[in-house]
Parts: sequence; structure tokens; C-alpha cells
Amino acid sequence: MLRFSQTLARFNRLNPGAIGALRLSSTYNIPKTQKGVIFYENGGDLHYKDIPVPKPKSNEILVNVKYSGVCHTDLHAWKGDWPLATKLPLVGGHEGAGIVVAKGENVNNFEIGDFAGIKWLNGSCMGCEMCDQGFESNCAKADLSGYTHDGSFQQYATADSVQAAKIPEGTDLAGVAPILCAGVTVYKALKTSGAKPGQWVAISGAAGGLGSLAVQYAEAMGLRVLGIDGGEGKEQLFKSLGGEVFIDFTKVKDIPAAVIEATHGGAHAVINVSVSDAAINGSIHYVRPQGTVVLVGLPAHAVVKSDVFSHVVKSISIKGSYVGNRADTREAIEFFSRGLIKSPIKVVGLSDLPEVYKLMEAGKILGRYVVDTER
Amino acid sequence: MLRFSQTLARFNRLNPGAIGALRLSSTYNIPKTQKGVIFYENGGDLHYKDIPVPKPKSNEILVNVKYSGVCHTDLHAWKGDWPLATKLPLVGGHEGAGIVVAKGENVNNFEIGDFAGIKWLNGSCMGCEMCDQGFESNCAKADLSGYTHDGSFQQYATADSVQAAKIPEGTDLAGVAPILCAGVTVYKALKTSGAKPGQWVAISGAAGGLGSLAVQYAEAMGLRVLGIDGGEGKEQLFKSLGGEVFIDFTKVKDIPAAVIEATHGGAHAVINVSVSDAAINGSIHYVRPQGTVVLVGLPAHAVVKSDVFSHVVKSISIKGSYVGNRADTREAIEFFSRGLIKSPIKVVGLSDLPEVYKLMEAGKILGRYVVDTER
Amino acid sequence: MLRFSQTLARFNRLNPGAIGALRLSSTYNIPKTQKGVIFYENGGDLHYKDIPVPKPKSNEILVNVKYSGVCHTDLHAWKGDWPLATKLPLVGGHEGAGIVVAKGENVNNFEIGDFAGIKWLNGSCMGCEMCDQGFESNCAKADLSGYTHDGSFQQYATADSVQAAKIPEGTDLAGVAPILCAGVTVYKALKTSGAKPGQWVAISGAAGGLGSLAVQYAEAMGLRVLGIDGGEGKEQLFKSLGGEVFIDFTKVKDIPAAVIEATHGGAHAVINVSVSDAAINGSIHYVRPQGTVVLVGLPAHAVVKSDVFSHVVKSISIKGSYVGNRADTREAIEFFSRGLIKSPIKVVGLSDLPEVYKLMEAGKILGRYVVDTER
Amino acid sequence: MLRFSQTLARFNRLNPGAIGALRLSSTYNIPKTQKGVIFYENGGDLHYKDIPVPKPKSNEILVNVKYSGVCHTDLHAWKGDWPLATKLPLVGGHEGAGIVVAKGENVNNFEIGDFAGIKWLNGSCMGCEMCDQGFESNCAKADLSGYTHDGSFQQYATADSVQAAKIPEGTDLAGVAPILCAGVTVYKALKTSGAKPGQWVAISGAAGGLGSLAVQYAEAMGLRVLGIDGGEGKEQLFKSLGGEVFIDFTKVKDIPAAVIEATHGGAHAVINVSVSDAAINGSIHYVRPQGTVVLVGLPAHAVVKSDVFSHVVKSISIKGSYVGNRADTREAIEFFSRGLIKSPIKVVGLSDLPEVYKLMEAGKILGRYVVDTER
Repeated sequence: MLRFSQTLARFNRLNPGAIGALRLSSTYNIPKTQKGVIFYENGGDLHYKDIPVPKPKSNEILVNVKYSGVCHTDLHAWKGDWPLATKLPLVGGHEGAGIVVAKGENVNNFEIGDFAGIKWLNGSCMGCEMCDQGFESNCAKADLSGYTHDGSFQQYATADSVQAAKIPEGTDLAGVAPILCAGVTVYKALKTSGAKPGQWVAISGAAGGLGSLAVQYAEAMGLRVLGIDGGEGKEQLFKSLGGEVFIDFTKVKDIPAAVIEATHGGAHAVINVSVSDAAINGSIHYVRPQGTVVLVGLPAHAVVKSDVFSHVVKSISIKGSYVGNRADTREAIEFFSRGLIKSPIKVVGLSDLPEVYKLMEAGKILGRYVVDTER
Repeated sequence: MLRFSQTLARFNRLNPGAIGALRLSSTYNIPKTQKGVIFYENGGDLHYKDIPVPKPKSNEILVNVKYSGVCHTDLHAWKGDWPLATKLPLVGGHEGAGIVVAKGENVNNFEIGDFAGIKWLNGSCMGCEMCDQGFESNCAKADLSGYTHDGSFQQYATADSVQAAKIPEGTDLAGVAPILCAGVTVYKALKTSGAKPGQWVAISGAAGGLGSLAVQYAEAMGLRVLGIDGGEGKEQLFKSLGGEVFIDFTKVKDIPAAVIEATHGGAHAVINVSVSDAAINGSIHYVRPQGTVVLVGLPAHAVVKSDVFSHVVKSISIKGSYVGNRADTREAIEFFSRGLIKSPIKVVGLSDLPEVYKLMEAGKILGRYVVDTER
Repeated sequence: MLRFSQTLARFNRLNPGAIGALRLSSTYNIPKTQKGVIFYENGGDLHYKDIPVPKPKSNEILVNVKYSGVCHTDLHAWKGDWPLATKLPLVGGHEGAGIVVAKGENVNNFEIGDFAGIKWLNGSCMGCEMCDQGFESNCAKADLSGYTHDGSFQQYATADSVQAAKIPEGTDLAGVAPILCAGVTVYKALKTSGAKPGQWVAISGAAGGLGSLAVQYAEAMGLRVLGIDGGEGKEQLFKSLGGEVFIDFTKVKDIPAAVIEATHGGAHAVINVSVSDAAINGSIHYVRPQGTVVLVGLPAHAVVKSDVFSHVVKSISIKGSYVGNRADTREAIEFFSRGLIKSPIKVVGLSDLPEVYKLMEAGKILGRYVVDTER
Repeated sequence: MLRFSQTLARFNRLNPGAIGALRLSSTYNIPKTQKGVIFYENGGDLHYKDIPVPKPKSNEILVNVKYSGVCHTDLHAWKGDWPLATKLPLVGGHEGAGIVVAKGENVNNFEIGDFAGIKWLNGSCMGCEMCDQGFESNCAKADLSGYTHDGSFQQYATADSVQAAKIPEGTDLAGVAPILCAGVTVYKALKTSGAKPGQWVAISGAAGGLGSLAVQYAEAMGLRVLGIDGGEGKEQLFKSLGGEVFIDFTKVKDIPAAVIEATHGGAHAVINVSVSDAAINGSIHYVRPQGTVVLVGLPAHAVVKSDVFSHVVKSISIKGSYVGNRADTREAIEFFSRGLIKSPIKVVGLSDLPEVYKLMEAGKILGRYVVDTER
């Protein structure tokens, strides 16, 4: 059975001396082996066991991962049901927050003792046309944490120093973990939407894990937030996060009409955190003329369909938003560090990861699980 | 039988004295009646007959229309097969080029004798949220030439002075007529695409009426143009207009692969002038990551379908582009006046209009018909 | 002596029945004469007297002005010390909030009974290159309230319906008056700065009339606000409005160093509400690389000087921001109507205007005076 | 005496077999020593002599430099008269074009045999806030070729693979050399100006080395080009490059009036390639309202001065544009490789470099010198 932490474990509050000491020393005793969760074939057993500590290449940092978020993508990586093959054997995880304990000779943007994050994009070529423009996620040589590069479900993980996330000193490492993927992703989607302060953004799936982060980022960006979701307690949660208008799809029949009325003409932007086909296609009907529908989740088989006549006459856009780049990551973390974003986490031990996977498969996850690599 | 003008009738070349005299006089003898083509019910007979000359309201100009382009939209207006009802009886036409012969008391941006154009958007409220942002085509009170307001298939037509197009003195009025709708529309689509000088734009339907204008505008904007079309002589036409790479869909099997190879990664932008469902949906596969697919035509029942997973991972946009606003119109005309755009017109008499409609219905139109209101 | 209203007079709170009745009736008894403040030569006597009620032209609305803000520009108009000549005799004022009581035949974006605002730009040609792009303040034919067109220091004033401001029903008309010029101007400056949510904006002159509005708009737009000002109580005022870091120029010697330290590298944008030459030129030194310095005030003889070498190497911009356009006005008013902006006003009678001018000349104005046209 | 090459030496035309062979082999015999020009103290003797071939670090490529452009910055580096200290001893040069002959273990975006360019920005941290946004030139740890890192005035030079320029196979290496700094710089300035296809750009100093590149890039970007320069043959040169309107400052008295008349309202953008104080300050008077003045040269003591009142009312911007980033570099080279830009070079031997410096100091340089490292 999982031992849930009822309150958030804030590493820097619980262990201030430890961190301070680490920074002062600036050298670390790095062990030869460590605890990690590894699997040898897709869908095979998940082993919590001793594995070797990796050595950073000349361009890499070695991060002593303290906490790591668990994301649906980790489930796909384990199952191997996406078109792109994973590395095998594989250590998953791509929301790792920890401390830099070693670095390669060419790393000049991290110091030993800095806080750092392992994120989905572990490294990219930095020299292709996509990288040149800051579209590093679209790099053909993208190296992905917990997918093509061993990730953050271990105590020590490596990352290209260019892509590794900077985390300000004093940041809550457990809380920031989900920001590294979930937070950055919704923040990027909001930027991609082009919505300006004072405009309406509709968030479809507003009370879920991604949605509740999206509501908070939108609010912090000066947007007016309309949330769509359904079920007990969702509206209260939504309003407590700063949302302005809530539409419960279990009660409202004509969602587009309701959104258009509440926003006096339709939402300027829609963030489709929900990956339901029907919800996505509905959003095209309640976006304002000249507005933008953002696709952000990665459903396996969903298709967005838009009537060309209306699409043209309303002059709308449907944009795909993948993960954030280095600048997006820095900004998303800064909003968190300033205390504007609350991370809805439950902390468990790394050894509990196999059980978390079972819960995810069963669709029983609420909020975001974070594993503590010390237990 | 239609009497085609083999060479373009250039009003200002043929009648330079007339225009000069008109400008000098600055007053005109405006008749009480005029020739026009009118119909009394949708799909009913098209009458070429004497009708009253309209009186400009205080905010309007009265334009002595010399030439008017004929557009597929005119056919829809006549048939009445679009969701929006037309005015009845109706004088169609929304590509009228002529001379200002009278104006209302509040008009302060046109002088008698100026060249002016009657375009699709005859007037809008100028005070709603859409108008405030320059999205006047999206105004709920949009007044449409040849649809809700008598249009340019008559010798004298009225237009709100704010929306009427400025045409520089000395411009070829027959040639500029199709620019007022077709030209502005493709120019706007190119702007909407966000493609930057030096980038690749693919034009699907490159050798048709709209397509051949799009190729020229794209070339004038510093873009590299790839054209897709099929059939005899299309490639030569395309290349003569400045196109760089042509793909003949009657010969090439895998269009996406061919586009991606020719552009080293996909087109940065796609302009779908073709309204074929298959062509539109194909364009999603050859647009470059981070690129934009522009929808611009108004097919009755076409639907664009996009796989959400690819849409997100490639981070693409699908944007609808309707007609241009005042600034777009001014700019599109300026490119024409500078001699950078050749208008592919055939001039016939206004009295020939019913026969032109028949040809359009039969799908036998090549290039753009322009009617001379004097015959 | 002026009789200051200690609390804000909120018309709609004090007179709810009156307004409701007015709307319902939708016709008004418009008198032939009214009270207004008029002068016959620049710098001449200001007469509070009976003057004729103007008649709206076919494109105009007639507004029963309830309240009007008083701006420094009104002083310039009266003195006639700007390069552009004023109309004479002249009724000044360009921050008038009231109710539409009549309208010309072509007005289709206002109804009798609507709330409306008279702002600096009374009308423009709407057909020139500048107007086409939404840069109506740059129109060569701009008609200016209280300058070239009788303004809001009278009970009934006219405005071109295209430029007149829409004010939502129920808005506090006294409070919204200064938003019509001061509020829109600082909001536009913030938009011009290009600063994004989460970035730092420095406001030079943060505790003055314009500055305190700028701080609130910046905060509502998700920006982090650093204020520079000097003197007793300024920091408290600034912080009460949502400001984050305050620098008192009477205490801090090296302002650039202080700003750079507080913002970890310089402000992403600077809004120069202060028109001091030294303050403006100082701002170039504390703007972040790639940042923007916005000039917004209109000092008579100030010159901004920038060292070309640093300007290039830091890649900064110096942008002029004039008044807002129709969209900016709508947005700025909406922020106010949502209750996010408090207007720092003192309400006096229209008959007190000559005394307000004296106080302005003597530099004794704190906050913003608003005149009540009923007294 | 200098032995000028009368025609451009096109390496790939003269030595096609050599290059082909090199690519096929994919290994090179790299010597221990090479020819280079080195100095030991600022302003000291320039020695053309045998020096060691550098070894690439794990993130670097080693480029066999074939040709290198000579820039005014090289003169400053030698003299040491800029605020930033140079490395000593130093090999100058930052416009080096050649072939990759070796690479570090972490380099994954270059292959042995690729064409590559050594540019001003040799490397940056890639992990700071500026680098994250693509503003790598503003990185506090920027490493500069020919300034803080030995540059391209040697046969073998190193560069960080992230910053090294990609040069398409088959490109003329002598001709592309000046594009690496001069070309990229003017191209970036044009992008920074925000000028759109069809708009007017004024180039102050249009017939000089940078100016003649700027004219060609502007033309290729669809801009209308007005040039300002003075003296014999300048207008012909300007027009031969695609310029539309030329203003000779030795003949025209009122430059602003002439520009405003020719462009019907002022240039939408101005690129100040000329570093004359008077010319820069004049440009503020002929830029169009809402337009942009770009500063791009690095004069030692020039100051731009702008009257705040006009700056605001005209709503203009003054922007500094430094060197291009990776994307700008790729794009600028692509325009060259497509044959749209002619590089105005004179090829001399590397051993002639000291004499070129003398000519530069004497202000006797016309066009751009390029040194051939083989002689």
C-alpha cells in the first residue's frame, strides 16, 4: 500500500542545513551504485534495485535527483506503445529535481551545488535549423529523458547542461518536480495561444492535474479564466485557483453557447488539456472569431476536425503546442519560485513506483505523484 | 457568343484625356438611370437593363464603375445557396474599379475624380470589438457588396468611404478589378501564413486564377514558391510567374514526400487555394514543423482533419484567412500599381454577364473575367 | 476655495434610478443652451457660462457629459503654447464620461442611452494609411477634443461615433473619466513596451497621477513592477497599488545599479511617466539588454540621448508611445470596469475649473481632478 | 604592394576535385604548425609566421580556413582601443570560411568535410537567460573570434560547434567570408527594423561595403530600397544592386524632405550603416510615423539624440541591432548561396594582412578585403 504524504514534503524546509552544507563544500562523495527503477523490456517487470551511477560526458551535468514527478508519458515509455522506440534497458522519468554533484569539462553554465532539473528534452544537437530557432523539441536528434536517455527514476542522472533546467536556490524540490514537464507544457500552451492580458482563455479539463496548473499560470499572466470540467468539487477547486467562470459539462447541455455567453463572444483562446475527441472538437465552436484553439495533450488516436467554411469566415487558428524550450522552462519555474503556482503533488517513495504505474493504468490517479528517491 | 478582348483594355491608356478632364472639372453629370444587371429572386433571370442611379448617403461615395471582376461568390449570391440571405432585388459584383463622381457630406478621405474600388466589404460598424482591431470582415454588421448592398455590376455604385479602396491615379482599372477581391485575399493569406522572406511557401492550386496571383505576390514578398497543380502548360505558366519548384499532381504519386524533399524539410507555409478536400488534408503532411497551413477558399462542405498527436509533435498551425482589411487592400493594390503583379483577365461587356455565369456554372472559366460597364 | 469631494462620487450609485429611467425612455429632452467653460483667446479669461448645445453631425453622437477629467494638455490648449494652433473660441476637455442623448443618421454603433466617452482623438479620416493600420492618432486629419473640436468642459459634447469610447453600463462615470486619456495612455505604453507576463517593468514617476495608474495596469497584466519616485509616503502608496520593489531617488544614489540589482539584470521595459530629462536618460542605463525604454510624456524641450555603442551592444529600443487607439481604449476601460484599477480622483464643480487651472500652473495638483458638469 | 585578384577566386570552381576528394576521404592530415598572423601586444607588430595548429576541445570543430574577410573590428582588436580587453597574444579574424577537418567527441552537428564558418561569436554559455532566448551575442560569457579566442587569420582555427556557421556544400568560400559578419549584421538589422515586404527602407551609407550588402538583402526581402550616399559612381552602383531611389547627399540639401517626398511620407525603416553622427540624427527626421530607426555600426563616440515630443507624437522607435544569432546566420548565408547576394570582395594573401591594416587606418578601403590563407 502506498504511504501518501498528506502534506507536501519541502526539502529545503526540512533539510536546510544539508543543502547549505552541500553548496559550501562544492565537492560530493559520489557513490558507485545507487537505487533506481529499471526495466529490461517494454512492459516487463519494473525493478527497484542497485544500478551503477552514470558518468557525465564532457557536456553533461550529473544530478543527484531528490524528487521526480510521474507522468503519463512514463507509462507509454514503459509499455512501448508509441511509434518511437525506447532505449532498453531503461530508467524512466523526466521530471527530476535535484542538485548538481559533478559536471563535464565543457559545462560552463552550472556549478557544483546548483539546483537543476532533468526534463523531457535531455539534449538536442543545437546546430540544426530547428534548434537555431529555439524549437529544440523539434530537433531530429532530440535525446529524451526516460525514453532514449536514462531518466530521473534513479538517484543520479545525467543531462546535457544546455537543456538541463536551472532551478533557483531555495526552491522546493518536491513541488517544482511536476513543473519541469507538466508546468512548462501548460505555460508554453498559454504562450502559444497568443492570448493577451485581459482576454479570456477557456481551459478544457480545468480541474485535472494539467488543468489546475494551467488555471494558475493563466491567472498569473493576467488572463481571465473560464474552466470546463465535470464532477463533484471541481468548481470549488477551480475557483480556489483563481478561475473566474466554471462550466460543468455534467450540467450544461450546450457548452459552446454557454462559453460564448459568459465571455461575450467566445474565448480568445482555448487550451485543450482534455484529450477527449468530443471536447477538442467542441472547442472550435466556442472560440472567438480571430481566436486560437491550442492542442496540447497527446492522445493516441484523436483527430481534430474543422469545417473549412467556418474556419475561414471566423478566421480561427488551431495550433499544436509541444513542450517548452529553455526560455519557457526558465519562465515557468520562475512563476513557481515566486509562489504564484501551487503544485498539486503527493509524495511517495521511488520504491513505490510500480504501484503508481498500476494506479495510472487503472485511471485512478488524481493530482500528480512525486517520488522521493531516498525511499 | 462572347466577344473576348484579346488584349487588356487599359482605360487610362485608351482614354487619358477623358480622365484628365474629369479630374480637372471635379464635377460630373450624373445621370438618373444607368445600365446594370439585376435579379429579383435567387436563381431568377439576370436582367441587363436600365435601373436608377443610387444616391450616396452622407458617409458614402458614388463610384462610376468602369470595370468589375466576376467571382465565384457572385454565383453563390445569385443562387442564394449560402447560409446568409441576400438582399433582393440585387445587383451583384464586388470587384468594381472606377472613379468617384459624388460623395456624402462626411466623406473626408476621397475627392471627386479619385480612383476608387468597390470591394466585398462595403461597410462595417467601425465601432465593435472586431472593427476596433482591424478585423472588419468579422463585424456582425458587415455590409457586403453584391450581397447585402447593391454591387459593381452597374455603372454607378455606392460604398462606405471608410471601406472603399483607394486606387492610385494612373492605375489600369480593368487590371486592378480582380485585385480588389482575389488579389487582396491571396495577399492576406500570405501575410496570415507568417512566412518570412527566404522561406518556402507551397501554393496548392498554383496555376488557377487565385493561384497565379498568389505565386506573384509570394515572389514579390521575397518568398520561395513551390506550386502544386496538374495538367498541360501549368508548369510553364507557374515558372513564368516566378515560381521555383513545380509539382504536377498528375505525375507525382507521393506529394508530401516530393514537397519535403524539394524544400529540405517541408514548406514553411501552405496556401490552400485549391478547395479540394484531399488537397487540403494532404497539405498537413508536407508543412514543415512549426509551419502554418492556411485555409483560404470557401468550399461548401469541406472539412479539414488533423491527427492531434502529429499536430502537437510537429507544432503546426491551421489558420483560416478570410478577406483583407483596409491596410491589406491598400498594400495589395500598391504591389499591383508598382507593376509587380499581372492580372490574368479577359474583358467582356456587362451585358455578357449572364453568359459568364453559365460558363462558371459549367466550370469552364480559366483566369478571371472582367466586365466593361460601357457595353 | 475648492470644495473637494472626500469620497468618489459614483454617479450610478447615487442616481441609479435616473440612469435606468433614461435608458428606458430612449429619448431625451435636449436643451438649447447649457453650462460650459469657454475661452475666446489663448490665455484669455475662462468663462463659466451659458453656451449653445451643439448639434451632432450625421456621423456623430451627442453626449450628455456627466464628469470630465482635467489633464495638463488642457492647460497647454488654453495657453496655446504648443506648435499646433487651437480652435477659437474653445471649450476644452478630453476626458468626458456621459450618456448618449442623440446621434446622427449614420451612427450604427451607439444607441441612445449608452454610456460613452469623449477622448483626445475626437475623430480621424479613417481612410489614410495611418488610420488603415489602427494608428489613428497619427492621422494628418486628426480632430482633437478640447483642442480643434469643442471638448468635454460642457454638459453636451459631440464626438465622431467611430472614435467615441464605449463605456459598459453600470460603470462609475466619475472614476472612468481619467481612464479615457491618462489610463489609456499608460496602458498603451505598457503594450508598446512589449513586456511579457512575469517580466520586470520599471515605472519612472511611479507615485504620480499617471504613474499610479501605470502601476495598477502593469500589475493586472501580470508584470512585476519596480517603481522609482521620491518623497514622503510614496513607497506606501506604490506598494498598496501592487508594486513589488520601490526605489526612492531621494535616498538611492546610483539608480541604475539599484534597478539592475533588484531585477537581476535590468528592467525588461521602462515606462517614463516622469518627463524629467535626467530621469529619461538614466533609464537607458538600467534597461535590460534587448529591453525597451518607452517615452510617453510630452515635455516641451526634453531630448533623449543615447550612446550608439551601448545602444547597439545592449540591443535596446527607445520607443515613443502616444495615445491609445480604439482597441486600446476598449481594453483599458474593461480593466477599469472589472474593478482592477482604482482611479485617484477628486471631484469638483465645472464652475471650479478656472481654479483648477491655477493650481495646475502652480504645480500644486496631486492625483487627478474631475469636474462634475452639474455644478 | 598588394597583388589584387581581379576576379573573385572561387575555391570550389578552381578546385572541385580537391573538395570532392576531401569529403570522400573524411580524414585529413592535420599539420602540427601552420601559417598565421599573430601579435603579442595591442598595436604591436603583426607577424606572419609559423604557429601551432590548435586542438579542438570536445565541443569544438577544427576548421581549415580557406578565406577570411577583414573587418574594422579587427583593427580595433589589434589596437586594443575598445573597453573590452583582448586575449594576448592574439590571432585576429572573424569572417573565416573553410572545411571541418577535425571535431571534438561531443560535436554532433558537423561532419568532417563539411563547409563551416568562423564568426564573431565563437561560443557562448547557451545556458543563461540571454542564450535561452537566442540572444547569444548578449551572453555575459560570450567568446569572440579574433578577440578573446584566436580567430581566422590562420590556416586552422577552432570554434564551438554550436556557434560555428553551417555553409552549404558548393558555396564560394571566398565570397561567403564577408557574409559571416558583414552580411549577417545587415541582414539582422533589416529583420530588427520590422519592415514588411512592400515597405520602404532607407539605407544611410548605401554604397559602402556594408551598405551594398544591405541594399541587396533588402531587395531580396521584398523591400523598396532608398539609398543615401555621396560621390562619383555611387548612384550607378546602388541601382545596379536593385536600389530604387538614390539621394546624393553632396547634391541634395534637405535630405529629410527629399526622403519624405520620395517615399510618400517617410521611410518605414532606416538602417544606419553610416556611423556619422549627423547622418544618424538626420534619420530620425525622415523615418515615417510608427517607423523604426536601426543603429547598427559601432562608432566610438557617437550619440543619438531625439526630441521626446516628436518621438512620442510620431511614435517612432530607435533600435540597436548587434550581430545575428544562429538562425540569422543560417538565413543570411542561404540568401548568398541562392545567388541573390553579390559579395564585393578583393582577394589578397594572408601575408598581405599588415598592409591591409595600413590601408584601413588610412581610410583607403573600398569594398571588402578577403585574405587567402594559402599565400
